[in-house]
Amino acid sequence: MATQQKIRDYGIVIGSMKTGKRNSITDVEGVTVGHTTLDDGDMKTGVTAIVPHPGNLFKEKVLGATYVINGFGKTTGTIQIDELGTIETPIILTNTLSVGVCTNALVKYMLEQNPEIGRTTGTVNPIVCECNDMLLNDIRAGFVKEEHVFQALERASVDFDEGSVGAGTGMACFGFKGGIGSSSRLLEMSHGTYTIGVLVLSNFGLMKDFRLNGEPVGKKLSSVVPPPHKIEDQGSIIIVVATDLPVSERQLKRIMKRASVGLSRTGSYFGNGSGDLVIGFSTATKQPHFPTLSLLTMETIHETDIDQAFIAVADATEEAILNSMITAKTTIGRGGYTLYSLADFLGDSPAIL
Amino acid sequence: MATQQKIRDYGIVIGSMKTGKRNSITDVEGVTVGHTTLDDGDMKTGVTAIVPHPGNLFKEKVLGATYVINGFGKTTGTIQIDELGTIETPIILTNTLSVGVCTNALVKYMLEQNPEIGRTTGTVNPIVCECNDMLLNDIRAGFVKEEHVFQALERASVDFDEGSVGAGTGMACFGFKGGIGSSSRLLEMSHGTYTIGVLVLSNFGLMKDFRLNGEPVGKKLSSVVPPPHKIEDQGSIIIVVATDLPVSERQLKRIMKRASVGLSRTGSYFGNGSGDLVIGFSTATKQPHFPTLSLLTMETIHETDIDQAFIAVADATEEAILNSMITAKTTIGRGGYTLYSLADFLGDSPAIL
Amino acid sequence: MATQQKIRDYGIVIGSMKTGKRNSITDVEGVTVGHTTLDDGDMKTGVTAIVPHPGNLFKEKVLGATYVINGFGKTTGTIQIDELGTIETPIILTNTLSVGVCTNALVKYMLEQNPEIGRTTGTVNPIVCECNDMLLNDIRAGFVKEEHVFQALERASVDFDEGSVGAGTGMACFGFKGGIGSSSRLLEMSHGTYTIGVLVLSNFGLMKDFRLNGEPVGKKLSSVVPPPHKIEDQGSIIIVVATDLPVSERQLKRIMKRASVGLSRTGSYFGNGSGDLVIGFSTATKQPHFPTLSLLTMETIHETDIDQAFIAVADATEEAILNSMITAKTTIGRGGYTLYSLADFLGDSPAIL
Amino acid sequence: MATQQKIRDYGIVIGSMKTGKRNSITDVEGVTVGHTTLDDGDMKTGVTAIVPHPGNLFKEKVLGATYVINGFGKTTGTIQIDELGTIETPIILTNTLSVGVCTNALVKYMLEQNPEIGRTTGTVNPIVCECNDMLLNDIRAGFVKEEHVFQALERASVDFDEGSVGAGTGMACFGFKGGIGSSSRLLEMSHGTYTIGVLVLSNFGLMKDFRLNGEPVGKKLSSVVPPPHKIEDQGSIIIVVATDLPVSERQLKRIMKRASVGLSRTGSYFGNGSGDLVIGFSTATKQPHFPTLSLLTMETIHETDIDQAFIAVADATEEAILNSMITAKTTIGRGGYTLYSLADFLGDSPAIL
Repeated sequence: MATQQKIRDYGIVIGSMKTGKRNSITDVEGVTVGHTTLDDGDMKTGVTAIVPHPGNLFKEKVLGATYVINGFGKTTGTIQIDELGTIETPIILTNTLSVGVCTNALVKYMLEQNPEIGRTTGTVNPIVCECNDMLLNDIRAGFVKEEHVFQALERASVDFDEGSVGAGTGMACFGFKGGIGSSSRLLEMSHGTYTIGVLVLSNFGLMKDFRLNGEPVGKKLSSVVPPPHKIEDQGSIIIVVATDLPVSERQLKRIMKRASVGLSRTGSYFGNGSGDLVIGFSTATKQPHFPTLSLLTMETIHETDIDQAFIAVADATEEAILNSMITAKTTIGRGGYTLYSLADFLGDSPAIL
Repeated sequence: MATQQKIRDYGIVIGSMKTGKRNSITDVEGVTVGHTTLDDGDMKTGVTAIVPHPGNLFKEKVLGATYVINGFGKTTGTIQIDELGTIETPIILTNTLSVGVCTNALVKYMLEQNPEIGRTTGTVNPIVCECNDMLLNDIRAGFVKEEHVFQALERASVDFDEGSVGAGTGMACFGFKGGIGSSSRLLEMSHGTYTIGVLVLSNFGLMKDFRLNGEPVGKKLSSVVPPPHKIEDQGSIIIVVATDLPVSERQLKRIMKRASVGLSRTGSYFGNGSGDLVIGFSTATKQPHFPTLSLLTMETIHETDIDQAFIAVADATEEAILNSMITAKTTIGRGGYTLYSLADFLGDSPAIL
Repeated sequence: MATQQKIRDYGIVIGSMKTGKRNSITDVEGVTVGHTTLDDGDMKTGVTAIVPHPGNLFKEKVLGATYVINGFGKTTGTIQIDELGTIETPIILTNTLSVGVCTNALVKYMLEQNPEIGRTTGTVNPIVCECNDMLLNDIRAGFVKEEHVFQALERASVDFDEGSVGAGTGMACFGFKGGIGSSSRLLEMSHGTYTIGVLVLSNFGLMKDFRLNGEPVGKKLSSVVPPPHKIEDQGSIIIVVATDLPVSERQLKRIMKRASVGLSRTGSYFGNGSGDLVIGFSTATKQPHFPTLSLLTMETIHETDIDQAFIAVADATEEAILNSMITAKTTIGRGGYTLYSLADFLGDSPAIL
Repeated sequence: MATQQKIRDYGIVIGSMKTGKRNSITDVEGVTVGHTTLDDGDMKTGVTAIVPHPGNLFKEKVLGATYVINGFGKTTGTIQIDELGTIETPIILTNTLSVGVCTNALVKYMLEQNPEIGRTTGTVNPIVCECNDMLLNDIRAGFVKEEHVFQALERASVDFDEGSVGAGTGMACFGFKGGIGSSSRLLEMSHGTYTIGVLVLSNFGLMKDFRLNGEPVGKKLSSVVPPPHKIEDQGSIIIVVATDLPVSERQLKRIMKRASVGLSRTGSYFGNGSGDLVIGFSTATKQPHFPTLSLLTMETIHETDIDQAFIAVADATEEAILNSMITAKTTIGRGGYTLYSLADFLGDSPAIL
């Protein structure tokens, strides 16, 4: 895995908060990410797995929440997260027509790890999120197989590539190549330092609307980047928010909602055809699957501490989207359709800066 | 205050859980209730105040939640409860056109107690709930004045009347006289004994639909009780749930939702014109208005403990509704309209048992 | 398919509204239902398909809505229904660990019918609902295959069996054998006669809580039915509501919410471990996938007409649950575990009536 | 009423869609706005009324919806709008502690116009929204009286002032003087031309975060504008969206949600202490209070038409916020606290452009 140039390497800094060490979702202690990339001709798709902690997730659930920005999407598992406030599996990202295959694989993975499921204890709630990569990928071909989910899970690591990898292999963002991007922020509070990390699967937006750190560069780029450019915002973005901040489910959901602020600032207006969804978890409180006889003890921040987390998520989401674009490489997909890398236009002699 | 005959005194027991000492919402430590009753000719209305704890509620907020069963209602304050998960004022019940007067009075009461509001700290979120008592009350006359709110608050006590009192003075339930009713249940868990109390302001339902502990007695009663009987379910019920059970906002909301189970069992189908709403709080976690530098610590039950609380709320709601009817007295209101007490038909020679 | 004895054949009538011709969800014009039953030894599971109309559902979507009673469940597709207000595939019911397989099969079925998907138009939103049949079924074995979904879809018909069939093969309800049940009601309004049909997949409840048309027969039955009886309400119910009533999405959701009233009346309190979910559609308004240049015209009832629909759904849900129990046959499942038919105790010499 | 310089007069144009004739919410046919301004020493507050159409609103309701961006607010009436999808009174804006007084006044106004309310028909659902103007206004003094509501309603007109007027008299936005602002957009569709209008009551944000059409001018301004500057985002924004576009309640809510995009682009991250709320209505469908015997007919756009409306609301909200700031005049309030007009820094020799 080569070191990738991220948007900060181009001198673009979003907001004024400090990032974590890797400027990545894996700055949150315990979180790992793995990819399976399927990139060959008309096959431009894959799987990305986000693992909230290295233990047995079913037996030690993390506190979780969901937030739907625009519900034109097929993500599974959200009903139970909303009801019970916990996430008990890794989060799998893939293309929209492969949700079934990945759900089945994730169930098998959990059954393997937990022989009690379906015997002495109940079921498991798999989380699979998706975007539609049909622009570059022959999505009807069903390239994603169950083994690709297992591979992505096995490869999960604190170091992972961004851009045209995993579930991001075939994705498009603001008319450029999109995909996987990540960023993080440190929260310095009186009671400790915490981390918020964001990982996006970006696949939304029209080039003319693109804003780079507030600058409406999209129109200028539209006249420079070779056509054709999409004219309808059909796509989606999945935003995964991880933190070690001690919060209640209600607080976590409030924090996650601010991902929409970062999304707005890049130029999105949550287009009708774009399934924009946030899944989030806090590792600060773990819930045992098999309850004890005593009460659970949970620490949470005061509500007045929360503004810092709001800004962190807004900024990290904006930066993660830019990272997904700048790290993605120019890609020729199905039928020869080409999506350029934003990096081609922000290079040594940048077209727009 | 004379001792009132409640539904258990007629041999009718809802469910199998134990009640608290008073079988009332005030079995939850610290909770008090007060009424101002306005009962004279066409004036059949009033105010009821539920006070979650005896301290300064603004400075020591209780954990709160809301649940809308059917939103044909004008209750105020729910947006902020849902966002912040706290209740910071007493809960005021009144008639639907008096919400403004009571809101204003409650704000004044809070300003009086908290000179910082509007000066060095922000605003306060008043909670006022309502039902429409126009059947018996000349609601256009605006009988409720701000002083009636102050009186109800002053009178708040662990002992309080049920039936045709306070906000319940002019209310109707299943074609009988309705009003204020209360009931409680004890939760015996491995880590302690807790109480759930319910208070209702009942003003819903058609006589033909009334079920007494599952028995469809409504049709029989319709042929016995002198007409006219209402033919459209326009009314409402406000259900206040109090507990000392340690729960998160998410858990509290789940518990409160089961009030709709008790409501259903009495014969309601959440009629279109009936504003059916639940407001709830737990006194187990108090949130300071002025935050400390450290984290908040919160205890919560395991989710697997929650079924007992679900049953408690369903049963206590059903019983509170029956108590509101059986304690209410036959009342002649506006234009001579008469609503009979259910007690008249469950007496020594009961018409229906 | 033999004629089945439903609860009305035992003299038990829920409510006072008329049923449709078949007293079934297929009384709603165009709706069909098909099953694949997998019943052999430890294999006690299957698939049920509900098809909203006989045309191309993707190109002619029905107006749809969802309502979560208790979200301990893994149903897919609800996010997009809530956002767009349409259903564009058949609704598949199965066991909880087979959601992935069925999702994948349903996607293939839709791709086959619609060659444009993933080429010139976007994706499709598959709807798969589930309950956990692990009590009787070896759910870890993964008996449900994609072909079983295709079979259920092919067999869809206005006449279909209830009870221990399709997705209901291994389900349990109030400690008896549960499964598929259906009922319908006619709505007679000034502007026409409409039908509301309900189909349930019942898998919830403890025997002691069971109420038969209001009568708390559960306790008596508990002493008569051979043990063991479940002591925790882990299960779920899926409730599918179909209608030809002209309604908006908002009105449809209001109507569907009253399914929880019928559910409550059977003795449920929406147990923590029970994923209770409603999916509904109206065939009165069909939305074209490829929009025209003009506006859509939609007819809706006045809100004041809606009470009749509320009562219809409450009553039909209660009756559908009873039908699922009375038509189900005594079944010996995994490890010899036996669930009895309610019919065995309501027969010629009924134990409880 | 003098002609006011709006942000376009400074050469700043938000987005690329055309505005309506007045670039105001009153470009939506039938909508009028009136103010009562209370501006004297420590009295810096008032009332603004938005009237959806000139007829009897109770008898001819408009289709309505609400959307909570951040629920730290006390707006009333939202529960019933969400349930029934209609607005039946004018919308009143005022300061946060005057919600009770304005609710009471609005009820009286509606009773006066509708003698049937509380007699032969049910109740009325008053809509009152608020922000906290305590920075400049002695909010504890209770300056707003019922007569101020009646005055604002009487003065409602298509021409109305923006800036430091009505409910906006004492409001602050991004550390400048805020208040009332408005903007509109034309939607040119194949089936007709429609208008979306936005009116804001702006009272949120920190100066350092302010973005002018994407440009992060806030930091520069912080060094130019005399201190003190607020350091916590406590405030709120009320956003009223009006349109004549034929939409369902679901579509209207989707459109209104995009107000948060415009809000984000000005530099807000929906601060914890900021009650950010959207109320919207469409005049295209009017619902009679007294239903007819036939069905209602409603026209709606295809979902694929909706992107234009999304962009319109995002852009008009951003521009309305800027208009609220640029039209507001420098104001010295309670205790001599001064808020400057943004216009002072965007003038002939602009400090920031």
